[in-house]
Amino acid sequence: MFLKRFFEPTLAQASYLIGCAATRDAIVIDANRDVDQYIAAAEAEGARITVVTETHIHADYVSGSRELAARTGAPLALSDEGGPDWRYGFAGDANVRRLKDGDRLDVGNVRIDVVHTPGHTPEHLTFLVTDGAAADEPMGAATGDFIFAGDVGRPDLLEKAANIRGTMEAGARQLWASLKAFEHRPDWLQLWPGHGAGSACGKGIGAMPHTTLGYERRFNWAFRAKTEAEFVRGVLAGQPEPPTYFAEMKRVNRDGPPPLGGFRRPPRLDLDALARALAGGAVVVDARPAADFAVAHVPGTINIPANAAFTTWAGWLLPYDADLLLIVDARTGVLDDAVRDLAMIGLDRLAGWLDPKVVDAWAGAGKPLGSIPQITAADLRSSLEHGAVTLVDVRNQSEWDNGHIEGARHIGLGSLAGRVDEIPRDRSVVVQCASGARSSIGASLLAARGLDRVINLAGGYNAWLAAGLPTVEPTAEPQKA
Amino acid sequence: MFLKRFFEPTLAQASYLIGCAATRDAIVIDANRDVDQYIAAAEAEGARITVVTETHIHADYVSGSRELAARTGAPLALSDEGGPDWRYGFAGDANVRRLKDGDRLDVGNVRIDVVHTPGHTPEHLTFLVTDGAAADEPMGAATGDFIFAGDVGRPDLLEKAANIRGTMEAGARQLWASLKAFEHRPDWLQLWPGHGAGSACGKGIGAMPHTTLGYERRFNWAFRAKTEAEFVRGVLAGQPEPPTYFAEMKRVNRDGPPPLGGFRRPPRLDLDALARALAGGAVVVDARPAADFAVAHVPGTINIPANAAFTTWAGWLLPYDADLLLIVDARTGVLDDAVRDLAMIGLDRLAGWLDPKVVDAWAGAGKPLGSIPQITAADLRSSLEHGAVTLVDVRNQSEWDNGHIEGARHIGLGSLAGRVDEIPRDRSVVVQCASGARSSIGASLLAARGLDRVINLAGGYNAWLAAGLPTVEPTAEPQKA
Amino acid sequence: MFLKRFFEPTLAQASYLIGCAATRDAIVIDANRDVDQYIAAAEAEGARITVVTETHIHADYVSGSRELAARTGAPLALSDEGGPDWRYGFAGDANVRRLKDGDRLDVGNVRIDVVHTPGHTPEHLTFLVTDGAAADEPMGAATGDFIFAGDVGRPDLLEKAANIRGTMEAGARQLWASLKAFEHRPDWLQLWPGHGAGSACGKGIGAMPHTTLGYERRFNWAFRAKTEAEFVRGVLAGQPEPPTYFAEMKRVNRDGPPPLGGFRRPPRLDLDALARALAGGAVVVDARPAADFAVAHVPGTINIPANAAFTTWAGWLLPYDADLLLIVDARTGVLDDAVRDLAMIGLDRLAGWLDPKVVDAWAGAGKPLGSIPQITAADLRSSLEHGAVTLVDVRNQSEWDNGHIEGARHIGLGSLAGRVDEIPRDRSVVVQCASGARSSIGASLLAARGLDRVINLAGGYNAWLAAGLPTVEPTAEPQKA
Amino acid sequence: MFLKRFFEPTLAQASYLIGCAATRDAIVIDANRDVDQYIAAAEAEGARITVVTETHIHADYVSGSRELAARTGAPLALSDEGGPDWRYGFAGDANVRRLKDGDRLDVGNVRIDVVHTPGHTPEHLTFLVTDGAAADEPMGAATGDFIFAGDVGRPDLLEKAANIRGTMEAGARQLWASLKAFEHRPDWLQLWPGHGAGSACGKGIGAMPHTTLGYERRFNWAFRAKTEAEFVRGVLAGQPEPPTYFAEMKRVNRDGPPPLGGFRRPPRLDLDALARALAGGAVVVDARPAADFAVAHVPGTINIPANAAFTTWAGWLLPYDADLLLIVDARTGVLDDAVRDLAMIGLDRLAGWLDPKVVDAWAGAGKPLGSIPQITAADLRSSLEHGAVTLVDVRNQSEWDNGHIEGARHIGLGSLAGRVDEIPRDRSVVVQCASGARSSIGASLLAARGLDRVINLAGGYNAWLAAGLPTVEPTAEPQKA
Repeated sequence: MFLKRFFEPTLAQASYLIGCAATRDAIVIDANRDVDQYIAAAEAEGARITVVTETHIHADYVSGSRELAARTGAPLALSDEGGPDWRYGFAGDANVRRLKDGDRLDVGNVRIDVVHTPGHTPEHLTFLVTDGAAADEPMGAATGDFIFAGDVGRPDLLEKAANIRGTMEAGARQLWASLKAFEHRPDWLQLWPGHGAGSACGKGIGAMPHTTLGYERRFNWAFRAKTEAEFVRGVLAGQPEPPTYFAEMKRVNRDGPPPLGGFRRPPRLDLDALARALAGGAVVVDARPAADFAVAHVPGTINIPANAAFTTWAGWLLPYDADLLLIVDARTGVLDDAVRDLAMIGLDRLAGWLDPKVVDAWAGAGKPLGSIPQITAADLRSSLEHGAVTLVDVRNQSEWDNGHIEGARHIGLGSLAGRVDEIPRDRSVVVQCASGARSSIGASLLAARGLDRVINLAGGYNAWLAAGLPTVEPTAEPQKA
Repeated sequence: MFLKRFFEPTLAQASYLIGCAATRDAIVIDANRDVDQYIAAAEAEGARITVVTETHIHADYVSGSRELAARTGAPLALSDEGGPDWRYGFAGDANVRRLKDGDRLDVGNVRIDVVHTPGHTPEHLTFLVTDGAAADEPMGAATGDFIFAGDVGRPDLLEKAANIRGTMEAGARQLWASLKAFEHRPDWLQLWPGHGAGSACGKGIGAMPHTTLGYERRFNWAFRAKTEAEFVRGVLAGQPEPPTYFAEMKRVNRDGPPPLGGFRRPPRLDLDALARALAGGAVVVDARPAADFAVAHVPGTINIPANAAFTTWAGWLLPYDADLLLIVDARTGVLDDAVRDLAMIGLDRLAGWLDPKVVDAWAGAGKPLGSIPQITAADLRSSLEHGAVTLVDVRNQSEWDNGHIEGARHIGLGSLAGRVDEIPRDRSVVVQCASGARSSIGASLLAARGLDRVINLAGGYNAWLAAGLPTVEPTAEPQKA
Repeated sequence: MFLKRFFEPTLAQASYLIGCAATRDAIVIDANRDVDQYIAAAEAEGARITVVTETHIHADYVSGSRELAARTGAPLALSDEGGPDWRYGFAGDANVRRLKDGDRLDVGNVRIDVVHTPGHTPEHLTFLVTDGAAADEPMGAATGDFIFAGDVGRPDLLEKAANIRGTMEAGARQLWASLKAFEHRPDWLQLWPGHGAGSACGKGIGAMPHTTLGYERRFNWAFRAKTEAEFVRGVLAGQPEPPTYFAEMKRVNRDGPPPLGGFRRPPRLDLDALARALAGGAVVVDARPAADFAVAHVPGTINIPANAAFTTWAGWLLPYDADLLLIVDARTGVLDDAVRDLAMIGLDRLAGWLDPKVVDAWAGAGKPLGSIPQITAADLRSSLEHGAVTLVDVRNQSEWDNGHIEGARHIGLGSLAGRVDEIPRDRSVVVQCASGARSSIGASLLAARGLDRVINLAGGYNAWLAAGLPTVEPTAEPQKA
Repeated sequence: MFLKRFFEPTLAQASYLIGCAATRDAIVIDANRDVDQYIAAAEAEGARITVVTETHIHADYVSGSRELAARTGAPLALSDEGGPDWRYGFAGDANVRRLKDGDRLDVGNVRIDVVHTPGHTPEHLTFLVTDGAAADEPMGAATGDFIFAGDVGRPDLLEKAANIRGTMEAGARQLWASLKAFEHRPDWLQLWPGHGAGSACGKGIGAMPHTTLGYERRFNWAFRAKTEAEFVRGVLAGQPEPPTYFAEMKRVNRDGPPPLGGFRRPPRLDLDALARALAGGAVVVDARPAADFAVAHVPGTINIPANAAFTTWAGWLLPYDADLLLIVDARTGVLDDAVRDLAMIGLDRLAGWLDPKVVDAWAGAGKPLGSIPQITAADLRSSLEHGAVTLVDVRNQSEWDNGHIEGARHIGLGSLAGRVDEIPRDRSVVVQCASGARSSIGASLLAARGLDRVINLAGGYNAWLAAGLPTVEPTAEPQKA
């Protein structure tokens, strides 16, 4: 038996190719939209993908299962558990096999046993994998968003992201039951989870790519809860706010993601096309580093730097119903990465890209540039004392609760696009986060929305603290992040 | 003034970006379909493309002028000479300016004077370029397919490729007149032609990227012709057969090439998809080296190796009305080059690509592979003596006329696809060219068409000669290539 | 805690970066010579490498531990077990910490306990890894060449590769003792071995990247042996012949590998330089596919195709005391991969590289090319019957024992370079392996050594069998591979 | 005949491969250190380099002629004109042919006539190129630094850069004589110069890659001078200050440049190695954009952004006798470009490189970062009025002469490294240039030299002007740039 793990750092997401060393048949579990990678990996192993499956309807990325099945001709095995609301919209496709608890998939000599493990979602499956050539007991389990290293899948997403009221406590109880039903298996069972640290599908997922049931039983907080009530309380507490795009992903993945046909660069555009696009309501993302954007940018563009958080903020801030343009360096692979990152979460309406030189060209053509002035903590304090500025803190709720600057207004960066009108336009606005990174994005967004004087707090709350300036401390016990 | 030449080796084609060093306005002349390169080059110069033009309706590649104008917002200046048959089908577009002899385009301080120079085609223009900042006389001329280094544009294409009877002699006379009208200009005028050595738009184009009028006047055969009659005779003699795809290009470029939106990899496919595509009538091009294809290939695929002649043979042999698949190594840039090469001549119906590993996988899945046996010259001679084989010589007419093997049947490789039925199926077929390269392609084509026993003459006619074997020598004076 | 596994497919070798999520300190275990990858991975994690270690003195690749320690300033922790013969020659360096059984390394909150596990080699260590932030028991163990997934490290290498007589049985007993001492640990302990399938450091290593002690205890043959004697017999039986370069690696890694300073392309050379190099005794490796080499190559060059087996055959066949030249395509990344592959096993004397076009250029300059004719199984049989050829079978011993062609002479490809004189020069030589791949290498080697008529059996022994031709079957029970 | 021009934008330098289409022999003229490109281009043409030459001893880059000749085995043809002081130090090498005026080189059917054209340097040669297959008169001339498009080579470099007193007027007279001797040739002679716009080897070189003698005779200022005196005055006026590294280049190229053996990345280093290197006196170049450097950098590093001016400022500011380290993004090709750029001008002592993440890691390890505050024009004015700051203007002389800020101190950026001591350390220093780009470099240099409070004028003199602030206007007629 062979196993290859594909880890997508922008999504903290794992998928698996598992195959039989003798027959070279292989299965793919939880494919994302980069379906080429699975075909290539199978070919590198001299293997054929003979079945495609997934643990559940994902909320954080567009599933590639359907396209992979179509591309390879392999049947698509989908959960038939969880009731009618969680049935896949394309479950009636000719190549779909519906999976129930207790079903079995054969991949050469590798045997896959299907276990229904609801909780994170109602239809969630776990796949027990037995290397039939060498053993008669499962070697491991692909657990999707059921059990992670150090955590379990959050049961509150449907309620919070997909807006299905009253489901989160029921989900937590289901998850408890699933754990109890699963835990009789042997200590040495390997667990191969669907996410690593950084995913919003859990609150404290560890960085280990794989773990064992015995280890988790001993050290994972979820297994240590004594009662269902204690577990339910624990699993619902302190979950981060789900990104806005999760609702769209759930819908797309249930109804049937359209095939992508490969990641494709949009056309290269020039200056005039940029001006026309901005005038026509396109959203233009300037993916340069924040420092460069702050110095000079084309007015109306939004700065989401092409770094590790690009996918996250694109998912929070970009619309699904507008044309998108990118300003990004193509020589460096950054353009292709950005195209891929956006497609991973279904942001496919790319109408064009431009080289960063367009910013100089814009000025060269006599058009004004924008800039985001930086203010120091000391100057901010003095401005606040004079009532000269509005301070907007764009950190998340738990950061805010743990301490903030007096007089600040709290609007998490993810919500900022929808709450611009709350900010008075009669004075300068200073945007602030922890380090200055998120506030740069927020400042660019406010400027693009027409606010005149938008300023960034250089170094953010950390700089404020480092300068020894006073803060509002939490009165109650702070929530854990 | 600045000038940048873009040379596309697969087409032996040149286009030009010429701009004003002061205002940074620029013009593009004879854009091919890789329009990104002009936008990028302009940006690298800090310039804006303010007008797009072309010398004539091209026959050997899809014009990028229309897409470039759309992408940049620049007006498109097109010939309005040559009569109604040669009017662009999209000359009525809002952004089109129609050009007549004597018109003038201003690109910052650079002045472009339009000269009608028919012959190669009726609507052909030449652009005289004056660096107005430094001089009051033209520095050079973009001559398109009017004057090349060492040759002139062939006037027989319309008749031979586009099947417009009776035009080639009239064209030759027009060309003579255009030359006479042009030659009063100063010796030091630089000439920037539209093709270099290897293009089928002339018969003896030199390898120099640029030349001067004075030099050509002295050393170009066309300027040395004493009379119109001598010139007409000379220019029509010995022109190579135009590739079959030229007719399609003429049509597309006149009627209006569709925008491409960038070169795009098709989806990656696997084994089963290949089998389905072959069954469904798709044309599958295996672009591996001929030696690899000869050893083992998927039956039904055609071998056009991804080397310098790829575009040429793709243009001769591939249909415009079928899906195309490519077997080619993606790690190496070869896939992206092949996609680009095909798009350059309008072969856009790419339905997918496969890694060369698919050949092993095909065998691994228990399906039979094909191979092309190689025969030596000595063995071929003995087989011919026994009447055991049919020998097909796929070289071009002039090569055949200069000598061939007795008993061979001559079918130029370009025509082979349409003449497969002439070859008897009751015995083995040996395919032969000069070196073994074209015959490999031809052999793959015959095998894909279902001939059972197709063999390649290793080393071709050169090997036959090197072995000292007898040939049929030309009886009359051989034509010059 | 975070863990990153680096898998080097050409060596089937794994190394690990393990770090503390809180302090961002990290350790590297079993670094190979691509030390940049560890520095880059640490940086990507925002971590610092604070200690470098390895499980044992490696025989199959040049260790990168010493260079990595020098490059990062981290201390180097090396085994001090195994007695004076197995002490590192550079153990006295200022930055070296000597490790004994029971020692402990702290990497932030991660605790590493050192266990002496001799058998594969006398000084071998295993590292137990405890995530101190979350647990008080080890999560896993980096086992090096002690326990693999499905196998254990072979104890016969020192005797066979490093020529240290009488050590293999003693090693096997030590290994038994190490296993017994290790097996009391919990089932759920993860095992992170130093090799995957394909390494010559074991005979049946599985393809799983990681396993658990509980699983191996149940399903690994080594744990199922009932007695020491049964284990010793089992572990010494059927081990493959170790490559010749292993002896050099052992020496280099013990005495102290020189720093490489990064993988570096040698200069590009041309035709004349190639001729001079060949004349001067340099070894020229033509890394093109075998089919291309067979058609035409520069006489005197050896064909080792740049595929997955490149490192293996380079290690078997190339000398450490001669200049090496490579003929390889640089556009495709193949050159840089080949440079890296060779450096991984210490083949650093690269004097230059040439593009494959040099083969055409060689002919263009009027110099003769070589070729390797291919013979079919049927023709080979007839030639053997007429006594016209010598047949050399270059497969390994167990393949030979399982069946071969009557009249063949068996010389494993790895030994061929040293046994060329055994082959008569008065007739043609046909080289044969299983599929035609190894025999192509062997044929090129014989041709480079001056044999006149070297022929390859197309398709190898498989083709012979497929043609239904008679073989010599094994009389006794065949050995398992 | 074929001709390929190689243009190196960082040096605005052109070299040429010219060859015979029949024999495929080729010559290289004025090779730079990227010798691989000539070998590759020759191979792409199916040609062999049979002679290597250069027009003169270059001052602005390390010559690659000697290495190219060694690598290809081609003879090296070097000027033997100009007297003993300008004889090549390696003219006695076995493969060197010494060239005198009137000599001739044969490259297949291409004939190269040698003309001595002193002025720019005493030994300068021009090569007249005749395509013997097609013509009996030269088609063009490789003019090196004799005649450019729109300018002539400056005759003052030896005096100014190499410090050879009293040569510049003599050189100007020689250049006049060379022009007079050359100008009888035909109008249509193409000129292929050694530099394009942007080179410091002339003052007004045009952007055209090639020109003709007829055109230059009409429109080049140098040909329009009526008398020798007028010409000498004209050619010596307004020449820019030559970069400091020119002296080193002259010496290296005359004495014999060492072979490079290809551009090679130095080892990747980490945080601790950077600290050690800084402590040990290495020069660390942070090649990130100025905006990023201004926000945060490792103290002691110098900012030379990896843009089009990188080579220029590296040549002005970096020492030849110290180890160099680079902080630069390797994923993006920028590292390899920087390595190449530095090697082009002989800065080979690269001891290592670091990823930009090292800046974060530096802070993460608890070490302080530096930053360059930005000041606005308005704030600068107020600071100047209060006498709170020293203002250093780092533009060049002619920019300063055309207008500057009152109270500023003028030290051209090129001289800044040697004049740091002139700047008082008791107050803040504001550095200013035209746009803010050069001043960023200058500010980083002052900070690296230990000045405490170094500030950059954002937007430079342009911003000052745009703000309508008063300047000191030139009293006399300003010099032309």
